[in-house]
Amino acid sequence: MTDGVVEGADVAARVALTWLAEPGNRVVWALVKAHGATETLERLLRGDIPDGPLRAAVNARTANADARKVAEAALRRGERVGARLIVPGSPEWPPCVDELAGLEMTAPGRVNWDTRTPLCFWVRGEHPLHETLDRSIAVVGARAATSYGTHVTHEMAYQLAGERWTVVSGGAFGIDAAAHRAALAAGGRTVAVLACGVDRPYPVGNTAMFERVLAKGLLISEWPPGAEPLRHRFLIRNRVIAAATAGTVVVEASARSGAAQTMSRVLALNRRAMVVPGPVTSAMSVGCHELLRTHPYARLVTSAADVLEEVGRAGEYLAPPPRGREHPRDALDEESALILEALPRNGTSTPEEISAGARLGLRTVLRRLSLLEAEGLVVRRESGIALARS
Amino acid sequence: MTDGVVEGADVAARVALTWLAEPGNRVVWALVKAHGATETLERLLRGDIPDGPLRAAVNARTANADARKVAEAALRRGERVGARLIVPGSPEWPPCVDELAGLEMTAPGRVNWDTRTPLCFWVRGEHPLHETLDRSIAVVGARAATSYGTHVTHEMAYQLAGERWTVVSGGAFGIDAAAHRAALAAGGRTVAVLACGVDRPYPVGNTAMFERVLAKGLLISEWPPGAEPLRHRFLIRNRVIAAATAGTVVVEASARSGAAQTMSRVLALNRRAMVVPGPVTSAMSVGCHELLRTHPYARLVTSAADVLEEVGRAGEYLAPPPRGREHPRDALDEESALILEALPRNGTSTPEEISAGARLGLRTVLRRLSLLEAEGLVVRRESGIALARS
Repeated sequence: MTDGVVEGADVAARVALTWLAEPGNRVVWALVKAHGATETLERLLRGDIPDGPLRAAVNARTANADARKVAEAALRRGERVGARLIVPGSPEWPPCVDELAGLEMTAPGRVNWDTRTPLCFWVRGEHPLHETLDRSIAVVGARAATSYGTHVTHEMAYQLAGERWTVVSGGAFGIDAAAHRAALAAGGRTVAVLACGVDRPYPVGNTAMFERVLAKGLLISEWPPGAEPLRHRFLIRNRVIAAATAGTVVVEASARSGAAQTMSRVLALNRRAMVVPGPVTSAMSVGCHELLRTHPYARLVTSAADVLEEVGRAGEYLAPPPRGREHPRDALDEESALILEALPRNGTSTPEEISAGARLGLRTVLRRLSLLEAEGLVVRRESGIALARS
Repeated sequence: MTDGVVEGADVAARVALTWLAEPGNRVVWALVKAHGATETLERLLRGDIPDGPLRAAVNARTANADARKVAEAALRRGERVGARLIVPGSPEWPPCVDELAGLEMTAPGRVNWDTRTPLCFWVRGEHPLHETLDRSIAVVGARAATSYGTHVTHEMAYQLAGERWTVVSGGAFGIDAAAHRAALAAGGRTVAVLACGVDRPYPVGNTAMFERVLAKGLLISEWPPGAEPLRHRFLIRNRVIAAATAGTVVVEASARSGAAQTMSRVLALNRRAMVVPGPVTSAMSVGCHELLRTHPYARLVTSAADVLEEVGRAGEYLAPPPRGREHPRDALDEESALILEALPRNGTSTPEEISAGARLGLRTVLRRLSLLEAEGLVVRRESGIALARS
């Protein structure tokens, strides 16, 4: 066998494995790591696996179909729709997702969805996957977003894209779509990570948007072309969004949404978990506030500047402190404050009048007045001392 | 001298000292602690103090007036307006404010406003001061509050007062006034901590509200009757609000507001620092979000329940988790999820049909169906299995 044939067999085996078991399956991943994809596929197909959910799934799937033929059909279908297949070792493979290898997630009352490294990515769009994800931030949130959430998402994603960060999201209605659209509006790059085939991005209502994403960014998926967006696949998909980006921003989330699960993975991967607050009267911010109350490492962010401060290379981005009216008086000592209080709003006072009004010694008043004048808080006129016009 | 005379002299001396130097002055406080108020007043009046701001202030104030006569006049004025004077050792003295004795505050660029324990409190209103503050929470915020801030303040303070917590605030326009009014509306107690004489509560625009506070709660101040609400006095006053309460909630605050200073003191006193988030698009929430971003111990609160969880005696209050639609499917294993996906929205399927649709073995399907039925997610009908109506 030539290297090319080996590689082709490996690629096809990965596609077949992704069809036999959902992506991220820890048993499949461990076998691939130990024996390679081709050998793992052979083992699975000859039933050389312990009894359990994986064996049941493989049996059910192979009852009516041939895994190798399914994979071949998927590869042909991918070729027809202009999708390329990326596997570990491909020049485009994004190393960031390899960190999923060590991710162990358990949560009380929830199944431990398998969270291992993807076996492959189907990609549509011109830009190389690894470069596109190199400087990327996920902006995600509720499908039933409010106008507030949509507005904040737009502002944030627009500015992030303007700073040449790739905006990654899940292509859903609401916050996800607002994030993709804002990145496109800024002329930036955006990546939709799908839980179905890249030839049939879900939801159909966002089809026009997906076409624009495709023209300027990427549609990617672990599932082969034609795969359906089954409910549980969104949870599996979310680990890729977490791993592929420097940080994830949740803009709106209802109570008991998937946001907590997403953020747990983001934090477990040592990425930045960021949350936008909102009105406490909004049901769509309840999940955000709950995240901030329960996840000590989730950071409140209010703007693209805050986000860049979190994810930016050291020193490259530093959010300016919030701008408010400057109050030089804030920094005053007590004597200076008393002097300013003693000065008339209009007109002037003599130092002696100030001394009496402020109940301070004349020498103190004169010393403080020099400092206040230097700070631009008072001015000296012929008739006496006056408050400076701010 | 009888004990009564000693006590009377001590009280009058404390009033004179509060007039000679602003409350909280650390030099005065240290002298009173070491020598008592009467002796301290004598020292100050005979100039037996180190050169410095205190000496300058005392000199200026005594240039045209006799401190003892001023104190006597203040006591007579207090009597006329029905204000009583509380000093350490009085039955009504609130022990919580004694913790200010150890408070050292420094902040870059700001004067270290003296923050020592008050020498006395002027009180108007029927209820005993110490009992009224025993279960109390401060609710404070911007004067230029938005309708959102006013609404949230009202909801929160109303419920806190309904749970028999005293609502403490500063009597200002905006959030403060909303807090007082909500407590009154709930038939609860409220305390306005003033930065001026209790006979002339500021601002004048809240006069009708202050009269209602007086009827059902308390007006208190460290400054003698007649004292003006000078700008710097609000900062001095704020330490009392922080010390007197179990925790402080900031509802709205603009950038560079005094909220950060307030929260620093709250935390330094080991009280609960709580902050209400708001729309990131609102200038009146910028200060709140900045507090949450910069003070790791400031806690985000969204409701009275959250506040009570923070300040409540252990176990007495525990905020219910946010209510959302329950999704039993969230907790499903992959096989069960596949089975539910395979079931038709309406009508029934046989286990064999499910097995084919979900690509799972029949035995697995049957085992999972029993569990799903027990969880109430599917029902068994004569014609087969159906999704349960939620």
